[in-house]
Amino acid sequence: ELVFDPSAHPHRRWNPLTNEHVLISPHRMKRPWLGQTEPPQVGALPQHDPGCYLCPGNKRAGGEQNPDYTKTYTFPNDFAAVLSHPTPDVPSPPHPLMTVQPVHGACDVVIFHPRHDLALARLSNDDLLRVIEEWVSIYKSRSSQDGIKYVQIFENKGAMMGCSNPHPHGQVWSLSAVPTMASTELASMKQYSLSTPPPSTAPKGPEGRPCLLCDYADLELSFTENEGRIVVKNDKWLAVVPWWATWPFETLVLPYRRHVQDISQLEDEEVASLADILSRVTTRYDNLFSCSFPYSMGIHQRPVSSTADSGPEHDIAHLHIHFSPPLLRSATVKKFLVGFELMAEAQRDLTPEQAAARLRACSDVHYLDG
Amino acid sequence: ELVFDPSAHPHRRWNPLTNEHVLISPHRMKRPWLGQTEPPQVGALPQHDPGCYLCPGNKRAGGEQNPDYTKTYTFPNDFAAVLSHPTPDVPSPPHPLMTVQPVHGACDVVIFHPRHDLALARLSNDDLLRVIEEWVSIYKSRSSQDGIKYVQIFENKGAMMGCSNPHPHGQVWSLSAVPTMASTELASMKQYSLSTPPPSTAPKGPEGRPCLLCDYADLELSFTENEGRIVVKNDKWLAVVPWWATWPFETLVLPYRRHVQDISQLEDEEVASLADILSRVTTRYDNLFSCSFPYSMGIHQRPVSSTADSGPEHDIAHLHIHFSPPLLRSATVKKFLVGFELMAEAQRDLTPEQAAARLRACSDVHYLDG
Ligand SMILES: O=P(O)(O)O[C@H]1O[C@H](CO)[C@@H](O)[C@H](O)[C@H]1O
Ligand SMILES: O=P(O)(O)O[C@H]1O[C@H](CO)[C@@H](O)[C@H](O)[C@H]1O
Repeated sequence: ELVFDPSAHPHRRWNPLTNEHVLISPHRMKRPWLGQTEPPQVGALPQHDPGCYLCPGNKRAGGEQNPDYTKTYTFPNDFAAVLSHPTPDVPSPPHPLMTVQPVHGACDVVIFHPRHDLALARLSNDDLLRVIEEWVSIYKSRSSQDGIKYVQIFENKGAMMGCSNPHPHGQVWSLSAVPTMASTELASMKQYSLSTPPPSTAPKGPEGRPCLLCDYADLELSFTENEGRIVVKNDKWLAVVPWWATWPFETLVLPYRRHVQDISQLEDEEVASLADILSRVTTRYDNLFSCSFPYSMGIHQRPVSSTADSGPEHDIAHLHIHFSPPLLRSATVKKFLVGFELMAEAQRDLTPEQAAARLRACSDVHYLDG
Repeated sequence: ELVFDPSAHPHRRWNPLTNEHVLISPHRMKRPWLGQTEPPQVGALPQHDPGCYLCPGNKRAGGEQNPDYTKTYTFPNDFAAVLSHPTPDVPSPPHPLMTVQPVHGACDVVIFHPRHDLALARLSNDDLLRVIEEWVSIYKSRSSQDGIKYVQIFENKGAMMGCSNPHPHGQVWSLSAVPTMASTELASMKQYSLSTPPPSTAPKGPEGRPCLLCDYADLELSFTENEGRIVVKNDKWLAVVPWWATWPFETLVLPYRRHVQDISQLEDEEVASLADILSRVTTRYDNLFSCSFPYSMGIHQRPVSSTADSGPEHDIAHLHIHFSPPLLRSATVKKFLVGFELMAEAQRDLTPEQAAARLRACSDVHYLDG
C-alpha cells in the first residue's frame, strides 16, 4: 500500500497565522523554465555614489541634504503614503459595500549604513545592532504619537522587489490603523490561545495561556536537525522555513525562549542575539545563489499599547520577522506568484523541508569573504 | 472646515469579498520612479512560430504533437500541479499547527486560438464565444469527476505575469478542495446574505436573499456615468474598477441582470454578451498604454454542485471575473506589491475612480486597428 510522502505527493498545508492554504506540488520542480528571467545584478557598487540620494552629504529627491551620518540615519519619506495630520472626517458611506476610513501616520526611511555597497548580509554584528536599536527607537517615538496604532517595519531589498536604490535601507510606516495582515495574525493568535490546551514544554503567553508561535517554535525544536525546518538557531532566536511557507525560501525568525510581544521589550542579550541571527540568515540567503539575495522583510508585533482600544488582549501577539524572497532556481529565475496564486491560493514546488535543508547547507561565511 | 476628498486625502477602503483593507494614497502619484523597469515587448509576432509548443502541428514539451486544431484546443498540462489519482491518505498531523490535506485533480491548458500572434483583445467576438464555450465544457466535464470540488479558470498574460509563451492560452485547475480565495469570498457572500436587509432594486439570490455582488452592481449602476467606477457595460454584464481595487487598473466583470452562480448556468445571450464585454475590457487595456497589456485573470464561481458537501448553501455564490494587471504608469513601469503590501496591506496610489475614468476614456477600437 502506498504511503504518503510529502516530498512526492501533492498536498495542501494550512497557515495558522493567516488561515490560508498553500498547495504543494513537489513533483513540479523538474519543470523547465522558459519564461522571463531577471536582469543580472550589476557588478560591485562604489562605497559612495555621488548620484545616490541616500549617501551621506548628498541631496535627496525632496531637495534636502543628508548630513554626514556615520551609522544609521532616519528621515521622513519624501513621498509618504500617509500624512501626519489626521484627514477630515469621512462622510458615512452611501452603502455598507462602500466603507471608507480616514488614516494618518508617518513614513520613515531608515538608512542602515553610510556605505552604499553594503546590505544587512554585509554588516558587522555591531552595525546590525545599531539598526535594531534604530528600529526600537522609531517604534518607541512613533508609538507615542497621537492615534498611532501600529508600527510596520519592513525592507524591500533588490530591484526585483521594487527597491529603487541599492543603498542599504528599509522603511517604517506608522499608522492610525492596524493593517490587515497584522490584524489577521493577531486574531489567529487570540483564537489559538483560547482554543488550545496549555503546552507542557513551550514558554507561555500572558496569564499562562498558550501562544501560537511559542508552541510552534517548541514543535520545530522537537525535530532532529536534519528532519525539521530550522535553518539556524542561536541562544535566543531561531529561523525556520515554516511548515506553511509560500515563497520558495521563505523564513520566519522568532525569539523562542520567552513570549516577547514587541521589539521595545527585547533585553540587551536578545538584541545582540537578533543581530547575530539576522546576519546568519541574510548571509545564507546570499550564499544560496551567490548573489545579493532579493526579498521583502517585515516585522510583526503587538499593536502599540498606548491607544485606548489596544488593551491587554493584544498581549498574546508574539514578535516575529518574515522574509519573503522571490528567487526559485538561480539569481535570475524567480517564482511568479500570479494567476492561480492570485486567484485561488499559494502554490509552491519545492517543499519547505527541501528549502530548509538547502539553506542549512549554506555557510555562515559570506561567499564574497570566502 | 476641511471636507474629505477621496482623490486628495489618504484613506482606507474595505474589500467585502476578502475582508481585507486597501490603503489609498492619492497624493503619491506624483512620486518619480527610479526603480526597475520591465523589458519592452518584442515587436510583431509571427502567425505561426515553429518553435512554439502551443502552435498547431508542433511538438509539446512532453513530446506529444499538437493536432492541426482550428479554433480552441485543450490538453492536460505536461507539468501539472496536481495529479489525477488521489494521493495516499495522510497520517494525522503530529500537532494542529502542522496540518496536511491530500489533494488531487487536473490541470488543463486551453489554447484560445491557433494564431500565435493573437490575444483575447485581438479575437473576434465569434472566437471569444468559442473560448467561453470551451471553458463551460471543461467546467462541466471536470465537475463530474471523482471528488472535484472547484474548477479554477485563469489566465496569466504577458511575461511580466510569469507567462512563458505569448501564444494565447489560459489554464484550468480542477481541485478536490475549494481554494482559499474562493472559500473566503464564499464565506463573505454567505455572511452578507444573512446579515443584510433584502434590496429593493437589485436582483436577489436564492430564496429572495440579498446577494453581495447583485447589490454591488446595483449600487454602481446608481452613479452617473462620470461619477462612478463602471468602465463599460452591455446588456447583461458590467466591468467596474471596484471600490476596493488593489491593482492600479484592476477590474471586476460580472453579470448584473440576475443571480448567476457558475458559467454552466449562462444562457446563450449571456454568453454572447460575455464575449462582447471581454473584448471591450481587454481592448481598453491594450489601448491604455498602447501595448499588449499584461494581467492575471481568474473566474470565481460556485464550488461544483455534484459533491456531497456542496449543498444549496453555496447557491449564494455569484459568478464574476477578476482582472489583476500590474502596469501603473506606462508599458514598462509596473506597481510593485512588495514590502508594505506583503507584510501589512494592499496600498495604491491612483484612486479606483481615477483608474475607471482613464479606462472609460480609452476606445473600444484596438489601437492596432485604429
Ligand atoms: O504553469 P505556467 O504558466 O508555466 O506557470 C505560471 O503559472 C502558474 C500558475 O499561476 C504559477 O504557479 C507559475 O509560477 C507561473 O510561472
Ligand atoms: O517606497 P518605495 O521604496 O519607493 O516603493 C516601494 O515600496 C512600497 C512599499 O512596499 C511600495 O508601495 C512600492 O510599490 C514599491 O515600489
